[in-house]
Amino acid sequence: MTYRNHELARLTATEAAARIASGELTSELLVSALLERIAERDEALHAWAFVDPDLALEAARRCDAASSPLGPLHGVPVGVKDIIDTADMPTGMGSPIYDGHRPRNDAACVAQIRAAGAVVLGKTVTVEFAGMAAPPTCNPHDPMRTPGGSSSGSGAAVADCHVPIAFGTQTAGSVHRPAAYCGVVGFKPSFDLYNLHGVRPAAQSLDTLGTLSRSIEDAELMMAVLVGRSYEPIPASASPPRIGFCRTHLWGTAKPETARAMAAVRQRMIRAGSEVIDIDLPKAFSELTPARDIISSYERARATLWEYNTHREKLSPQLQRGIEKGLGWSFGEYRDALAAGEACRRELEKTFAAIDAIIAPVTEGEAPVGLDSTGDHAFIGFWNLLRAPSFSLPVGRGPSGMPVGLQLIGPMGGDDRLISVAKWITTRPSM
Amino acid sequence: MTYRNHELARLTATEAAARIASGELTSELLVSALLERIAERDEALHAWAFVDPDLALEAARRCDAASSPLGPLHGVPVGVKDIIDTADMPTGMGSPIYDGHRPRNDAACVAQIRAAGAVVLGKTVTVEFAGMAAPPTCNPHDPMRTPGGSSSGSGAAVADCHVPIAFGTQTAGSVHRPAAYCGVVGFKPSFDLYNLHGVRPAAQSLDTLGTLSRSIEDAELMMAVLVGRSYEPIPASASPPRIGFCRTHLWGTAKPETARAMAAVRQRMIRAGSEVIDIDLPKAFSELTPARDIISSYERARATLWEYNTHREKLSPQLQRGIEKGLGWSFGEYRDALAAGEACRRELEKTFAAIDAIIAPVTEGEAPVGLDSTGDHAFIGFWNLLRAPSFSLPVGRGPSGMPVGLQLIGPMGGDDRLISVAKWITTRPSM
Repeated sequence: MTYRNHELARLTATEAAARIASGELTSELLVSALLERIAERDEALHAWAFVDPDLALEAARRCDAASSPLGPLHGVPVGVKDIIDTADMPTGMGSPIYDGHRPRNDAACVAQIRAAGAVVLGKTVTVEFAGMAAPPTCNPHDPMRTPGGSSSGSGAAVADCHVPIAFGTQTAGSVHRPAAYCGVVGFKPSFDLYNLHGVRPAAQSLDTLGTLSRSIEDAELMMAVLVGRSYEPIPASASPPRIGFCRTHLWGTAKPETARAMAAVRQRMIRAGSEVIDIDLPKAFSELTPARDIISSYERARATLWEYNTHREKLSPQLQRGIEKGLGWSFGEYRDALAAGEACRRELEKTFAAIDAIIAPVTEGEAPVGLDSTGDHAFIGFWNLLRAPSFSLPVGRGPSGMPVGLQLIGPMGGDDRLISVAKWITTRPSM
Repeated sequence: MTYRNHELARLTATEAAARIASGELTSELLVSALLERIAERDEALHAWAFVDPDLALEAARRCDAASSPLGPLHGVPVGVKDIIDTADMPTGMGSPIYDGHRPRNDAACVAQIRAAGAVVLGKTVTVEFAGMAAPPTCNPHDPMRTPGGSSSGSGAAVADCHVPIAFGTQTAGSVHRPAAYCGVVGFKPSFDLYNLHGVRPAAQSLDTLGTLSRSIEDAELMMAVLVGRSYEPIPASASPPRIGFCRTHLWGTAKPETARAMAAVRQRMIRAGSEVIDIDLPKAFSELTPARDIISSYERARATLWEYNTHREKLSPQLQRGIEKGLGWSFGEYRDALAAGEACRRELEKTFAAIDAIIAPVTEGEAPVGLDSTGDHAFIGFWNLLRAPSFSLPVGRGPSGMPVGLQLIGPMGGDDRLISVAKWITTRPSM
């Protein structure tokens, strides 16, 4: 790979968009560089479920030939998780049941980014129906370790500079876990902010479309496109934000690298002038872990019932057990779990009256060794039930040199403010 | 049509299920009777987008041959609105773009009813993408009048005894309006209660799957299947319910037949021992009408962007304008509209502290004359934004002999209690 192509592959989406807009770079050159990187690296990494170089280059050339820019993503390559429908590419759902399946239409988010000028580079590997089975993907920092899941391919592809930004979806921790394990920025907006039409559901009251990227600005650029506003970077918080420091009820499971990252960020925030308030979540929050599990498996069982009843032998044993578990919950148990989530959402609202954002662990620690599991999502899952927007931000390295992240959580609907806090935190000199 | 077939066609789902379970009736006989009725009546009515008699009869015979009942819907025919995916029947969305489109899989609700033994009789006509364009369907009580929309075929088919129960979906008033205009029972459960996988979205924060049937018990039977519990009829409220009597901010648009129906039900409830409390909704509720409109068109524009960008000429001019309107709202306007809905949901919660259910108008009056419009959904739409469960109940006839309905609304999550109140109301001798 040439030095020039290496450099192009490292561009963020925002940088690429600016260079293409200024005429300094063509989409075709950028896409060619990324395709070269994928050709070199993906045989080992398995981040992509589908890439057709001709299709991607053709789309890039169409952008370059356009008389005026289509939108803020003009010419920018984007990776699309393979549970998201694309009319011109197969959508395999990580399941042999959907091998070669070609949807009739683009998902809303795909139509939106295409209308904004994006080039869909290809489909990134998803865990089977965005669940928990092991994907073929490796962690780009260590091929013996998992990239996390279920947006495994998006995390690995973005971290390994195959594409600047990719879609992920989160039902428990499927955006933030691969982001943390692969060392990139995960952004999960407020529940229901991005349109989910054409995104295969796992559990409808939890599923959230998000992004994995190498910069906060890229998440912001994508948000501008998906909510339908022009891209004007939100400035970093003008004053030091008030931070809730939340170890959570799972603190006992945090590995030393996570404890160290939490302590370091706390110290740096205080030094930079932030008011840091320790937050002990009410006891009810610890019950969100089983509540989320009930909701997720109850809803997933129904969303996957057709596959279970007609193609059971093609489902992983793990998913079959998950569906059976989900069908086993009584309606009352499900309703109670929903009520527990709703009650804690209202509690969390009150908590946010005194703070701008919460810092909390995102994973126990570094990506674990082994490709037979995607790791644990416990530190993320219960927050996901709370529907609040959040980032997974890479903040350091663990004992094995693997990335370590933290979660930054804002109030429901406070996505813009959360971005300004995230920028404040990540632009402090000491971070 | 034989007398026997006439009688079979009039069976409710609950009655049919009981007769089939007792061995008194076969699914094949019932399906044959309904197919005969459809053959006789649907050329004029246009309630069905797709019926394949062989496919339906084959499914019925499979039920009859089963060694044990599959579930509470064993052998019972169900109509499926044509925006809901079926793996073995086309799903046309009411749009030429999807002519002959055959989805890869069944929607969750279709898989659920099939697993419970139901026979999918066919696909009922939907307005284009469950929107507002005029469908070909007539009102079975008067072919010169609209059946309402967008679940037009489900309303007409159930009212005309082509099928005992059918799925509908509601984003503004698409279950309750056809229910009211056609004189059947519309049930819209609490938002997010029924799984929406495989149901074409219109506006994701409003879309709710519901049913149209000729009895409250049938809605209840379907609810048992979709939430995953055994069917045990909920008894009518043991004591007279406390009723909120709510004319709403739109009262000025109510036609005399609606005013009369409201007055009559009020008097009967009081006579039957109910405490009837007049409810004046806070001023903020009147702003829900434009808020719902903003939310609906903003979200619909995104959900229909692929069709708009790739097949614009095949969209009705009305839908094209709707999409353009939706793309025109700023994100801030959308966010404010969502916040208005959320604030009123919390207000409504407080209102329900003192009452069991609310009675309110469902439409201005009888189905209007003319097939170029599906009527007005204003009396339903703002309640739909509140996400509370509700019935449209047929309560009488208007000056032209057409059905007149009323809405019965319960608190969010209070579906079971709402059913018990609906039964109390409809079993008072004077109703």
